[in-house]
Amino acid sequence: MRNIRVRIAYDGSQFFGWQRQAGFLSVQEVLEEALEVLSGHRVVVFGSGRTDTGVHAMGQVASFHSETRLRDDRLPFALNAHLPPGVVVLEAETCPEDFHAQHSARGKRYAYLVRTTRFRPPMGEAYMHWVPDRLDLDRVRQGAGWLLGTHDFSSFANAGSPRKSNVRTLQAIHVVARRDAFALVLQGDGFLYNMVRTLAGTLLEVGRGRMEPDAVQDVLAARRRSLAGPTAPAAGLYLRRVLYPEPCFQGTGVRRAGFFG
Amino acid sequence: MRNIRVRIAYDGSQFFGWQRQAGFLSVQEVLEEALEVLSGHRVVVFGSGRTDTGVHAMGQVASFHSETRLRDDRLPFALNAHLPPGVVVLEAETCPEDFHAQHSARGKRYAYLVRTTRFRPPMGEAYMHWVPDRLDLDRVRQGAGWLLGTHDFSSFANAGSPRKSNVRTLQAIHVVARRDAFALVLQGDGFLYNMVRTLAGTLLEVGRGRMEPDAVQDVLAARRRSLAGPTAPAAGLYLRRVLYPEPCFQGTGVRRAGFFG
Repeated sequence: MRNIRVRIAYDGSQFFGWQRQAGFLSVQEVLEEALEVLSGHRVVVFGSGRTDTGVHAMGQVASFHSETRLRDDRLPFALNAHLPPGVVVLEAETCPEDFHAQHSARGKRYAYLVRTTRFRPPMGEAYMHWVPDRLDLDRVRQGAGWLLGTHDFSSFANAGSPRKSNVRTLQAIHVVARRDAFALVLQGDGFLYNMVRTLAGTLLEVGRGRMEPDAVQDVLAARRRSLAGPTAPAAGLYLRRVLYPEPCFQGTGVRRAGFFG
Repeated sequence: MRNIRVRIAYDGSQFFGWQRQAGFLSVQEVLEEALEVLSGHRVVVFGSGRTDTGVHAMGQVASFHSETRLRDDRLPFALNAHLPPGVVVLEAETCPEDFHAQHSARGKRYAYLVRTTRFRPPMGEAYMHWVPDRLDLDRVRQGAGWLLGTHDFSSFANAGSPRKSNVRTLQAIHVVARRDAFALVLQGDGFLYNMVRTLAGTLLEVGRGRMEPDAVQDVLAARRRSLAGPTAPAAGLYLRRVLYPEPCFQGTGVRRAGFFG
């Protein structure tokens, strides 16, 4: 049996999230079905983590064991032929036996995309969060600065699976501005349930002027979800990359698959 | 009665084209219905020209007469409140009595968007044409060079409404390259039925190496549709701007509403 990891992109609006659940189409399910056809046996796929309904991925990583004899560089083509629209395998790589997409992961990078056109964009509603209010991105950057580093992020976690600790390290957070749009890019060693969307929702309040940039520090310290801003919609959220101790997918010219590069 | 022109953006995948037709939802119909609510009387809207099902617009212009007393700068907000998702009025302007969105038009600018990722993009299928083949954009540019200027474009027109002459002037044609995508931007004094899509389809054949760049000159000279390439899909086509002798919409900060700026 080979231990294989794949890099996957998907349109979150076309699935009920990553994780398999009876009666709702998930990315895991369609991937496992495609792998079963190719492998000739049942395959269980482990993702680096779940994504909710509506959340997109440009660099989700999953690992699985398979008897397939297909070469790594042929696997994406073979798998994609058995996958429905909305999900695509970008790369595949045979990896050491101890690699596990979730347990080996050391961090993740997300992007939260916001469009700031005055009127509701006629297209792409599922792919960006539209905010018609005037936003001051300098305020957003100032507020974001308080979040960098190691903190207890309880104020930014919605009720979800309970965890031993709510302490996480945010290694990077920055605002990439484009005309009529911007991306909030976050990288950390791990994220609590809905944490990126709650951080985005809070920083949008700061950008609107409804919350002071320095108040982010107080919200963080209070460890109370009720003090943070609303959870921003799933449509704007993209899982961009999963980070591992050994670099993954170095060989094949990596091409990204979403808007905004 | 005021003579009013509006600049409109719409998602072509959500309508059966611009022009009103019984039983099929068109942009013209939803616009006329919104205007009837606002004006208190039946309104007939004239677009700068039709767009087919699936073709998008970021700068379609339409004109109409209305009794509405709303100020120009309030009209987009009022109209958008009565329009379904997928279409948005970006600007409105009261104009001279002799202005007519179609008859006053002196030219149009289109963009044809192509994605060149190796695998089918999981999202945005309705908004770009995906071409997995390797394309040589220098060949595309070289082929495009033959199209500039005044020519009989019969080779690039599909059977449609008959016209007096198939001579048109292409004022500009250029390739704007992005990572994993490019736009073919065309500006001319007018375009025959499906002309942009047929030019795009032909230049894609040139980019693939299936047609020589210089053969474009021969195809043009032959005035035979069968010699040109296939009609590229509607999904990639955007009406970007309609050109008038008097500049339109100068007052309000113009914001665009589609991908690719």
